[in-house]
Amino acid sequence: MDVYLPPEAVPLTPEMEGYRARVMDCTARPEELDELYTLHVGPAIVGHIRPEFARRLEEFSDVFDVRSKDASVVMSRELRTPEERTKAMAGVLRELRSQGVITGWRDELYPVVEAFHQTPLMLVERAAVPYLGVRAYGVHINGYTVSEEGEVKMWVARRSKTKQTWPSKLDHIVAGGQPVGISCADNVIKECQEEASIPEPLARKAKPCGAVSYVCMQLAGLKRDVLFVYDLELPADFKPKPEDGEVEEFMLWPIPKVAEVIQTTTEFKPNCALVVIDFLIRHGYIKPDEPGYLDLFTGLRIGHCA
Amino acid sequence: MDVYLPPEAVPLTPEMEGYRARVMDCTARPEELDELYTLHVGPAIVGHIRPEFARRLEEFSDVFDVRSKDASVVMSRELRTPEERTKAMAGVLRELRSQGVITGWRDELYPVVEAFHQTPLMLVERAAVPYLGVRAYGVHINGYTVSEEGEVKMWVARRSKTKQTWPSKLDHIVAGGQPVGISCADNVIKECQEEASIPEPLARKAKPCGAVSYVCMQLAGLKRDVLFVYDLELPADFKPKPEDGEVEEFMLWPIPKVAEVIQTTTEFKPNCALVVIDFLIRHGYIKPDEPGYLDLFTGLRIGHCA
Repeated sequence: MDVYLPPEAVPLTPEMEGYRARVMDCTARPEELDELYTLHVGPAIVGHIRPEFARRLEEFSDVFDVRSKDASVVMSRELRTPEERTKAMAGVLRELRSQGVITGWRDELYPVVEAFHQTPLMLVERAAVPYLGVRAYGVHINGYTVSEEGEVKMWVARRSKTKQTWPSKLDHIVAGGQPVGISCADNVIKECQEEASIPEPLARKAKPCGAVSYVCMQLAGLKRDVLFVYDLELPADFKPKPEDGEVEEFMLWPIPKVAEVIQTTTEFKPNCALVVIDFLIRHGYIKPDEPGYLDLFTGLRIGHCA
Repeated sequence: MDVYLPPEAVPLTPEMEGYRARVMDCTARPEELDELYTLHVGPAIVGHIRPEFARRLEEFSDVFDVRSKDASVVMSRELRTPEERTKAMAGVLRELRSQGVITGWRDELYPVVEAFHQTPLMLVERAAVPYLGVRAYGVHINGYTVSEEGEVKMWVARRSKTKQTWPSKLDHIVAGGQPVGISCADNVIKECQEEASIPEPLARKAKPCGAVSYVCMQLAGLKRDVLFVYDLELPADFKPKPEDGEVEEFMLWPIPKVAEVIQTTTEFKPNCALVVIDFLIRHGYIKPDEPGYLDLFTGLRIGHCA
């Protein structure tokens, strides 16, 4: 007879339940992951692919060996160098684009790496990243003001209704993917200029504060992202201006309002919600004495940070 | 023939190598973990025990079933409630103390939990925590000043030569274990008073900023700690005073000096080094463009944060 008494379940506050729901919005379920094909380049597993997309790759047998037996897509070992792999992959992706399989072409190359700072195994068109389920990197900037009385407000962007991804959702003042050939620091400055007209001297004050990561299922496939997080304290009189038409409006919200919108709605673009929760933890708005704190903290870095 | 070209190894800077060495100082090697016995309470694995200590527990067969076959120590299921387990464990530990097996008695009870905020499965004397390899929690406070010109300095404590653990090592201005029956917030206030004479109104400004965790082998056994991290900006004219005789002296060091001592020496108590590295990351002193950044960031939370 087992007379073990299990520990009592700790009830979460509605606020913590809300934060937790936002993390779950960005976290793939185990059964979603189970059905994916692994993408191999040499001995490295670099991606995870939906079965439907894996079958699309079967027709490119000079580039891929698609094996349903062990649910793997193996890139041809005849492709020896990053340059050869990049070229072969570009041909495949262009063809799939013309077939209408891959949409949202960006003409921007992303590195496929086993870990950040390593020489890329190849470069691929950004739009193909979720189809291939390769890890991608980005920079997200929390732009905020602190009044003389110490009140903190955060700049929140409303994405344009015509944006191809996540139209009309709430976003960071500045955020962008990390393409090949530019440092994170320079990318922050570039994106600050492009997305919110933040001049370089001000953008240089953005302070790196760590990272969040997630593994999340989307229609195209698996998003495996590591986002480098920056804090940028802005002067009270600075007003961000949309420069590239991707933002509908910028709003300056008190932190309690930002927190409430995160807790009670899905208005924020899901990965931005994670970065904002990380901000709330780092700045002491969410506290260790609140049940669920460590689960939430861990949930912000479910993806492998490599 | 495998013609895969592996990605180039990325050389780390000497600074990053130094930080990485401090993380390794706090990280058990796989072969150290392999030899440990698991400690079971009901269906939960709550600890990890050195074989030598597991053999010591064999003589208490009314409390433990020690099985060398599957390297497990199973607490008797006849002990139904946390109270019964606490009492039985206290008897065992007192006996082992009188035999000289457990040293450094503290007369302070720590909860044994599967996760923070859960009802404890039992309470155990703090000195026994590493022998049992149960998870423990603590609060560490980064005390720092910011000058009008923006220069940041950190208060560093030199532990007393007569301290039982880590004598003469460098430490945080305030840090302490998290015993049962007190919130993290109240513990911070208590420790601030006891360790550095920081008055309550000032101590209340300590801001929780997340956690670090580690799993590290010591002579007694496995340390599995989660440390809640706080930042406390102190006024320029505040001078901490040792109140309980555990600190030799307090020193106010510019951040580059703190960083250099971390990088090039083992002068800091190992777990404090982790918390300081976390501070350096959160405050932008270590940057994502430095090779090894994500490994370092991940290395600060090797232990399961639950």
